[in-house]
Amino acid sequence: MDIQSTETPALIGLDWGTSSLRAYLFDVSGRVLDSRHSACGIMHLPKPRESGGFDDVFESICGDWLNASAVPVIAAGMVGSAQGWAEAPYIAAPANSAPLIGALKTVVSSRGTLVHIVPGIIERGAFPNVMRGEETQIFGALTAHPALGAGGKTLIGLPGTHAKWAFVVDGYLERFLTFMTGEVFAVLRDYTILGRTMHPCAGRDDDAFLRGIDMAVHAGATGMLSTIFSTRTLGLTGELRPEQQSDYLSGLLIGHELAGLSSHLASQGSTLDDWKLGLIGAENLCERYRTALHRIGAPDAGILHGTTECGLFHIAREAGLLPAIARSIPE
Amino acid sequence: MDIQSTETPALIGLDWGTSSLRAYLFDVSGRVLDSRHSACGIMHLPKPRESGGFDDVFESICGDWLNASAVPVIAAGMVGSAQGWAEAPYIAAPANSAPLIGALKTVVSSRGTLVHIVPGIIERGAFPNVMRGEETQIFGALTAHPALGAGGKTLIGLPGTHAKWAFVVDGYLERFLTFMTGEVFAVLRDYTILGRTMHPCAGRDDDAFLRGIDMAVHAGATGMLSTIFSTRTLGLTGELRPEQQSDYLSGLLIGHELAGLSSHLASQGSTLDDWKLGLIGAENLCERYRTALHRIGAPDAGILHGTTECGLFHIAREAGLLPAIARSIPE
Repeated sequence: MDIQSTETPALIGLDWGTSSLRAYLFDVSGRVLDSRHSACGIMHLPKPRESGGFDDVFESICGDWLNASAVPVIAAGMVGSAQGWAEAPYIAAPANSAPLIGALKTVVSSRGTLVHIVPGIIERGAFPNVMRGEETQIFGALTAHPALGAGGKTLIGLPGTHAKWAFVVDGYLERFLTFMTGEVFAVLRDYTILGRTMHPCAGRDDDAFLRGIDMAVHAGATGMLSTIFSTRTLGLTGELRPEQQSDYLSGLLIGHELAGLSSHLASQGSTLDDWKLGLIGAENLCERYRTALHRIGAPDAGILHGTTECGLFHIAREAGLLPAIARSIPE
Repeated sequence: MDIQSTETPALIGLDWGTSSLRAYLFDVSGRVLDSRHSACGIMHLPKPRESGGFDDVFESICGDWLNASAVPVIAAGMVGSAQGWAEAPYIAAPANSAPLIGALKTVVSSRGTLVHIVPGIIERGAFPNVMRGEETQIFGALTAHPALGAGGKTLIGLPGTHAKWAFVVDGYLERFLTFMTGEVFAVLRDYTILGRTMHPCAGRDDDAFLRGIDMAVHAGATGMLSTIFSTRTLGLTGELRPEQQSDYLSGLLIGHELAGLSSHLASQGSTLDDWKLGLIGAENLCERYRTALHRIGAPDAGILHGTTECGLFHIAREAGLLPAIARSIPE
């Protein structure tokens, strides 16, 4: 009799984005047995994609796992984009996880393994929006925290290079916004005059960060193109020390993002108070957003952990990729 | 008897900014006899400033002019900043040209020439603003176009790397705003994901440019961090061709700048309709702003030429740097 142990590998899940790859080895209960990280994001493959760049990275990260046990593989993120391993379609919002599961894109690796790629989500209209990877985190969060998904309105923020805010109503991802906050912060710091007077800061300078948020909220009507210049001028007038300027700019941009989110909600006749708030992302970045949300008087936002793993496992299970453990247990 | 010919050099004027230097040789009537351009802006000196970097550039550009005739020298722009040849003070707005003239900063070149540097202007407050060089253009514009300065309210836009909008009332520069539109456009195009799908466009794609302006005005409440992402998504959905994306982004940023300017005016109980509008800058960039202003229903803006030369000459004359030609003419 072959009862599967919960120590036995049952699934490989890949979170394969632009700048990195994270791989998880799950048992049949969804527990993570092992995980690995690689800097070989889809824009950083060691070989071109035409020369087997994806296959090589996949083999180097997952080869020994697959040698030991030929488990199914699921992947999410930019790996499914036009520049990825195979292009997975976009599913139109509003959507729950069902249409994603019904539209998994498969690609066969050089060793013959079927890799199932999760589709992205698109919101069409005059101002289209797209996501790839975040949908898996969002449905993972709803699975891991059923209270978020069951009834009511949840607003999930995913800070980062291209921050997303997803409006989830009764388990459906209704619509979402993208803010290029992380990427804009990096290029302003690294390539414009604003970075020239900045000195690194060991920790986070809360005074400067909060001051940036306040500036965005109170003087923000002239817009970000104008307010960011204050990073320089407050330095020139001695009101902002060089080691404060980075956190000031960070607060300014996050403040503009949250002000934009609030304006969007207002245009829909809503406010942040109408939503349960959740945050998904790097801990210190989520903490910045919690601080900023608190500063503007928004409800407390919970930081949601393990959502990527949970989302990959959930979608694989719902898609029938896992062995049916329950049915193999003898009565 | 020594009557000065209007062919005789009487003044050298330098417009010495961050990225370039333009030098003018004037006769006593303000006519430009000769002009020269150098890429040796204050951030691009061939030698460090401590090793005579400014002197070397000054000699190479103006040395033969000064050998021929030891005329006075006036300079404006970032040459008067903390990173410049000598730091000129900031004059606090509101100001007309008188306090600038009273606070010229002098530096002696290696050949013993006195170089007079025009101060910048600062607007203090919670959101300080500074300019260096634009004040000379603005007072030059008011001198060249007396109708702009005499009575009434004039709003002068100076598009560029750091665009300025100066509110001039009865000949006084009352206050001003800075928008980092040009620099932000360049780093978004050159260093972010938005540039990856852009193809160069031979001329200006007006449809794309106007669409960007409309997007900024109508969907702009969520802010620029959000709307810029549409440059990519409209490409993904096939609604914006690669060669249109640069002009779309240009329209989007200029649209956000003008929307911010309008919001600022609204917060002061004013609108663009209350002001005579003038533009100073590169011709094709000023044309973009005229088009954008027209698109948002603003009054027509005149493009003002020769303002730098006029401003340098005006300030030098008012400061008494020129020979008193009138008094040297015999009765």
